[in-house]
Amino acid sequence: MGRAYSSLPIEGEPIARTSHRWITQLKQVLTVLVLVLVGYYYGNLPSLTRMWTIRSEPDFSHLASHCADILPIKSDSFVARQQALAETLYALKASAYIAEPGASAAYYANLSGTAWHLSERPLLLIVTPEVDEDNHVYAQVSILTPSFEATRAKLLSIPSASKVAYPEWPEHVDPYAVALSVINQSNNGPIYVDGASRLFIRDGLQQVVSHSVVQSAPTEIRRLRERKSEEELEIMKCANEVTLLSIRAAREYMYIGIHESEAGALVTKAMSAAGLRGSFALSLFAENAALPHGSGTDKVLGKSDLILIDCGGTLHGYESDVTRTFALDDSDIPFWTLAYWRLVLNAQTVALITAVNGTITAEVDQAARNALGVSAMYFTHRLGHGIGLEGHESPYLTGGSKDVILTGHTFSNEPGIYVEGLLGIRLEDCFYIDTDGQPVYLTAKVGGQAKTPWLL
Amino acid sequence: MGRAYSSLPIEGEPIARTSHRWITQLKQVLTVLVLVLVGYYYGNLPSLTRMWTIRSEPDFSHLASHCADILPIKSDSFVARQQALAETLYALKASAYIAEPGASAAYYANLSGTAWHLSERPLLLIVTPEVDEDNHVYAQVSILTPSFEATRAKLLSIPSASKVAYPEWPEHVDPYAVALSVINQSNNGPIYVDGASRLFIRDGLQQVVSHSVVQSAPTEIRRLRERKSEEELEIMKCANEVTLLSIRAAREYMYIGIHESEAGALVTKAMSAAGLRGSFALSLFAENAALPHGSGTDKVLGKSDLILIDCGGTLHGYESDVTRTFALDDSDIPFWTLAYWRLVLNAQTVALITAVNGTITAEVDQAARNALGVSAMYFTHRLGHGIGLEGHESPYLTGGSKDVILTGHTFSNEPGIYVEGLLGIRLEDCFYIDTDGQPVYLTAKVGGQAKTPWLL
Repeated sequence: MGRAYSSLPIEGEPIARTSHRWITQLKQVLTVLVLVLVGYYYGNLPSLTRMWTIRSEPDFSHLASHCADILPIKSDSFVARQQALAETLYALKASAYIAEPGASAAYYANLSGTAWHLSERPLLLIVTPEVDEDNHVYAQVSILTPSFEATRAKLLSIPSASKVAYPEWPEHVDPYAVALSVINQSNNGPIYVDGASRLFIRDGLQQVVSHSVVQSAPTEIRRLRERKSEEELEIMKCANEVTLLSIRAAREYMYIGIHESEAGALVTKAMSAAGLRGSFALSLFAENAALPHGSGTDKVLGKSDLILIDCGGTLHGYESDVTRTFALDDSDIPFWTLAYWRLVLNAQTVALITAVNGTITAEVDQAARNALGVSAMYFTHRLGHGIGLEGHESPYLTGGSKDVILTGHTFSNEPGIYVEGLLGIRLEDCFYIDTDGQPVYLTAKVGGQAKTPWLL
Repeated sequence: MGRAYSSLPIEGEPIARTSHRWITQLKQVLTVLVLVLVGYYYGNLPSLTRMWTIRSEPDFSHLASHCADILPIKSDSFVARQQALAETLYALKASAYIAEPGASAAYYANLSGTAWHLSERPLLLIVTPEVDEDNHVYAQVSILTPSFEATRAKLLSIPSASKVAYPEWPEHVDPYAVALSVINQSNNGPIYVDGASRLFIRDGLQQVVSHSVVQSAPTEIRRLRERKSEEELEIMKCANEVTLLSIRAAREYMYIGIHESEAGALVTKAMSAAGLRGSFALSLFAENAALPHGSGTDKVLGKSDLILIDCGGTLHGYESDVTRTFALDDSDIPFWTLAYWRLVLNAQTVALITAVNGTITAEVDQAARNALGVSAMYFTHRLGHGIGLEGHESPYLTGGSKDVILTGHTFSNEPGIYVEGLLGIRLEDCFYIDTDGQPVYLTAKVGGQAKTPWLL
């Protein structure tokens, strides 16, 4: 439209050609009009331009370097964990700690549920406290294995200061009786089993142990894994930082008119480029975000809609978890939505500063609810969960929970407001308790909490 | 080579052309020679021809009709199972039966582990025995659900004669205390938990139940699921039949020179065409079959190699499991390998006829070992496992096991001989105990046991 002056006939040009030009230029005007209309449909003209620009192949390669220098857990650290476990068992006068392949066995002996898939045939990590000639307690690590699978079991990479024992049970022999062959039962101390083990494992053990009790590991043992070391925190910080960076990078390719599935795919693509494994991204727009597990629709982003992305992945086995509810530069968010957003952010802030060393977990959950005031009725889930080798692990920031927050603990802090049919807002950053007993966001190095729906 | 006579000059032809023909025919001779050499490399000339013929796109569409008329478990049958469970609980003076989503919950209430994925938040099937005004025992089915997820939980398809209750636990409330709200504890009867549940579920329940015990479900309850109904057996027969038909159909496309992975892919393709879900196929050639979980190589089939295929899939949730160790028409199997094959088949036969109603499971395992004589030292695993909604489930045909075989029980019968570096032979058919107490192969309708390595 700004070039209408060029339609003036140029001196000496024949009339016929000028008339032809008028038609061409009418076409141009109509094209622009159609573009404007389409642009209006999708929000406005700038966002239409943006839509075309950013439909170029997204490039997230710059994220790859962020955690490139972060190393996996060292072999020595596994040995230190086993030593701490042995000392705790000894102090508790317990005979052994037993776990099936999974997060706890991964923590103590690099034996995850992917390293060894569970079947009906027990393969168990057994750690027993032993005392050497100098009266020092040390850990003896054993892997109970079906004889049948012994060759494969011995290929597992199990760090240990002393030689790992592989008691084997042939198919016709009770595996639990074989497990006892590596457990000193002289003091009839309890045998502690990881709480995620299947019930038949405990029952099988209890049946062969006549004089002592087989039960879930107590708090003293659970805390060994719950409280993270500096080495673990370095991994978890980077995992959470790069998750937040992924949301920010993916946002650059989002536009009014994008589908929920496309927005989610951008985020998982970014997280994969960042080197995270097993990435997930929940992507919900506007009122769809009010249903915690989505609506099943694949909503198109409107100009007044907020985008909720809840995502994470693993770095060296450790999980990240970040949620942002945000807007695009072209968005036009109603003031009352913004007010709710601000309320949720405030609840997140209040919850964080409450969570100092020594606080009871339920109090932190309550602090967030208090901060939400009457809107707390729309905050339908707990405030947060422990996080580490599992995405959700003990302790939990939830009403009724009486765990004590201690240095090294890591939690998600994720208040939200969900009004069905209207909106869903959640803001989530994970934090840890530093050596001074203060809560610090794992995402602190890249800005921590969101500032506004536009400044993530 | 047999056409060398055609190289004689034909009367009246110019010498030059004859000389040209000599070159052409030399080429032909050389081509045949190369083909023979290549053929020799792959086994022999016929197998080379075969290799080309059967590399056409495999067509397994004829398998689709085999189980097309088999129906899934009827809603009424779930109700009948719940009724049997309630009566058993009542007879045992128990208060409730509790299971996490999984095979047992799928059996009683169509609540499998895929219908609802396990998380740290308990969602539980609770069945309690109730007594109506006429003194009839009936089952009350409840689904304990996080309040948070109640909408989604109510979308589960849970058959029941009476209305299903959905006790909800808000995030700040102990879920196990809410579970007790639907359990009549007046007689302090035990609460039975499915043995595959996670230990923390039992512990959580035990903590809130002060006057009665929470423990694994006893044999009387396990047997309800172990002993299959006619309806279940119809599904399992068809699943196992079509699995065997799949091996046979896939064999038609195998050739000397095929890779283990290709042979396995043919079988899974056939099983998928047959309508089985979640198909698996272990494919091992010759001495590779001596390692129960494969060698990691992708061996090429030689003329003197046997092919071991161990495969299965599910039909309406029920698993199949069939193993054949077999040869191709072009194979040339050494006589001592054939002797071992025959020995394994004999062990399978002896095991089957031993497994009548009332036999102790360990005795069947022993019978197979006795039949193998000194070669039993190469039979390194148990004889068999129960099969149904799980690929491996109780009871097991294994040494040390004291379960009693009863009508409706289903087992795999899979003796084998494994000599590392030399050979591995396993033959597996599943069987059930019919109403006369006699063992019958689930594959009987399509021939049952293998007859020879060529006649599967």
